[in-house]
Amino acid sequence: MQPMSRTLTTTPAADGYRMPAEYAPHSGCWMLWPERPDNWREHARPAQAAYAAVAAAIARFEPVTVGVGARQFEFARAQLAPQIRLVELSSNDSWMRDVGPSFVTDGRGGLRGIDWRFNAWGGLDGGLYFPWDQDDLVARKVLEIERVDRYRAPIVNEGGAIHVDGEGTLLVTEQCVLNPNRNPSLSRVQLEAHFRDWLGVDKVIWLGEGVFNDETDGHIDNLACFVRPGVVALTWTDAKRDPQYRVSRDAWERLNDARDARGRRLRVVKLPQPGPLRMSAREARGILARDGAKPRRAGERLAGSYVNFYIANRGVVVPLLDARTDRAALRRIAALFPGRRVVGVPAREILLGGGNIHCITQQVPATGGREGDRHGEGRRRGEAAR
Amino acid sequence: MQPMSRTLTTTPAADGYRMPAEYAPHSGCWMLWPERPDNWREHARPAQAAYAAVAAAIARFEPVTVGVGARQFEFARAQLAPQIRLVELSSNDSWMRDVGPSFVTDGRGGLRGIDWRFNAWGGLDGGLYFPWDQDDLVARKVLEIERVDRYRAPIVNEGGAIHVDGEGTLLVTEQCVLNPNRNPSLSRVQLEAHFRDWLGVDKVIWLGEGVFNDETDGHIDNLACFVRPGVVALTWTDAKRDPQYRVSRDAWERLNDARDARGRRLRVVKLPQPGPLRMSAREARGILARDGAKPRRAGERLAGSYVNFYIANRGVVVPLLDARTDRAALRRIAALFPGRRVVGVPAREILLGGGNIHCITQQVPATGGREGDRHGEGRRRGEAAR
Repeated sequence: MQPMSRTLTTTPAADGYRMPAEYAPHSGCWMLWPERPDNWREHARPAQAAYAAVAAAIARFEPVTVGVGARQFEFARAQLAPQIRLVELSSNDSWMRDVGPSFVTDGRGGLRGIDWRFNAWGGLDGGLYFPWDQDDLVARKVLEIERVDRYRAPIVNEGGAIHVDGEGTLLVTEQCVLNPNRNPSLSRVQLEAHFRDWLGVDKVIWLGEGVFNDETDGHIDNLACFVRPGVVALTWTDAKRDPQYRVSRDAWERLNDARDARGRRLRVVKLPQPGPLRMSAREARGILARDGAKPRRAGERLAGSYVNFYIANRGVVVPLLDARTDRAALRRIAALFPGRRVVGVPAREILLGGGNIHCITQQVPATGGREGDRHGEGRRRGEAAR
Repeated sequence: MQPMSRTLTTTPAADGYRMPAEYAPHSGCWMLWPERPDNWREHARPAQAAYAAVAAAIARFEPVTVGVGARQFEFARAQLAPQIRLVELSSNDSWMRDVGPSFVTDGRGGLRGIDWRFNAWGGLDGGLYFPWDQDDLVARKVLEIERVDRYRAPIVNEGGAIHVDGEGTLLVTEQCVLNPNRNPSLSRVQLEAHFRDWLGVDKVIWLGEGVFNDETDGHIDNLACFVRPGVVALTWTDAKRDPQYRVSRDAWERLNDARDARGRRLRVVKLPQPGPLRMSAREARGILARDGAKPRRAGERLAGSYVNFYIANRGVVVPLLDARTDRAALRRIAALFPGRRVVGVPAREILLGGGNIHCITQQVPATGGREGDRHGEGRRRGEAAR
């Protein structure tokens, strides 16, 4: 293990690093602790319970670390299962996928992290809150604790805006990545070049819009994801009058037309959309609205999607969102991941805050040298917990 | 490595653990970042420079981690050498020796930490500030990051109040350990029993008072320390009218009368006292005095002592305090540690805040299983830096 986290001035691709897929082995998972009362109802107590349940579910498969601000350290420690590591780590909200590092590996035991510039999903032009100064330090702090070298990327990006297949293909949405509130001076071609340099990919597949009313400007991780190379899961509705129909239909067509980095056609598996779900009056009343944070109103359509799951070492942790569709979604996801145990966790409280299980997690890839050990550790612990 | 930090309900001795001496191999060193302007002059800028120099000196020999509150994270990162790991970690002040864990090992690869109760060196009866809530969480946070199991001790104690020889002997002062502002309900005999249970020692050697005007109520680590089993360094003055003379003389006599846990007589080596040193008017003016923190006044005698050094893997980091005595002290310490490189660091700014290099550091012992690796790592890095 390296004794320090250096900040590098090269790019991952130039150094022989690329981003592995989420379904590759992990050494662990990072999360943050939700607390802001202007985003989470009832002072975030219900959301905290949901986050704690997600952390416990993932800890069945791999070690979990949760970061929390100083004020709630003791409270979070009491809420979280004892096998979860808790570290002091300030943030403006609790979306580790988007504020944490995207890890890259070199296949020879090397592990490094990309620290993207972060602007709260759009900065002062449509972003969700101000300030985001603590969020933008999270990736660096994670990398320091893990003693992992850091690349500071020159572009605004979030982990939820990118999905890779681990074999050279990147999946993104135009709505998010080309949004003028992220990198207004960069063209599609320039952004593709950046992704090649930073993620080590060869091919970018562009979908159009994200899930209807997704406040991240349409993150890919709520719409579609790789299940393995050549296979993509997509949130779907057959209701033609639902605004999501047009979005999913367009994504389905683009995916069917696409070839991945290895020239393969993609198989697209549809996951049923829950709901449509809306914020209730009671839920909206529990939020302490204030200037500077996105208002949340009763009746607002929620961007629920079963695609927003987390792939752990030998498991998949899936949001439960709607009793009418949960079972079908779990069954379909289980069929997609024959080697993994699928665990559902009630996640409406996470959805109310604007995302879901994938958005609040960030995997640390296992590396060649330690992969066997660490993966084995995750397996043993997962099995003991069953 | 264990995937979590459990809180244990047994005692170290019952589990076969004991505290190793500071001169045993380390896997690293922890420190905190000073910032409170009511203790450190000029908003702690000169102290921060001194702490950074200490961290850099220790990092020549072993990996160093520094904890810092969220507000100063980026500033501290810029001040500290890049090879130092920086983690967010709140505290009320910056004395890792006293608020951090005391580590114990079992000689078979096991490493655990003792989280003492902390009351800011005397609580509301002579303590140095209020509150101390963040300080009392530091040990737990260190152990979580390190994934090391934790004992929560039932007594008030500080790391600076204890020195062990690693072979069953504990050195303490009556002034501190028997002070009614620490554990008023416990007798000397009961405290010895606690030390046996928590540190795994067989014999307690009691000195009387600590260094004159030492605001910790006479911590042993400013007065005397083991250099190796059977050899103790003691701060000394021959000036009979100096109030330190009586203190050092009493300690010298007690040490000469003592036998250690193995029945050995002790060799006592005198280190010259610097000064006497006093706080200047200019230094006192730089402190933003306020209610609730110990006042610091011009002319106040400073409890300077060369005994307050840190023993690193292949080095000793020694405070430089007085041009008239520094060289003699360094020479004598070098003679005491033939296998280590002795490095002096200007430390008056640390002394102005009430302690010195030993007080602001806490070693993590290397364990049997990983000792070779980790010690080797420290050695290689130390040599590369020379």
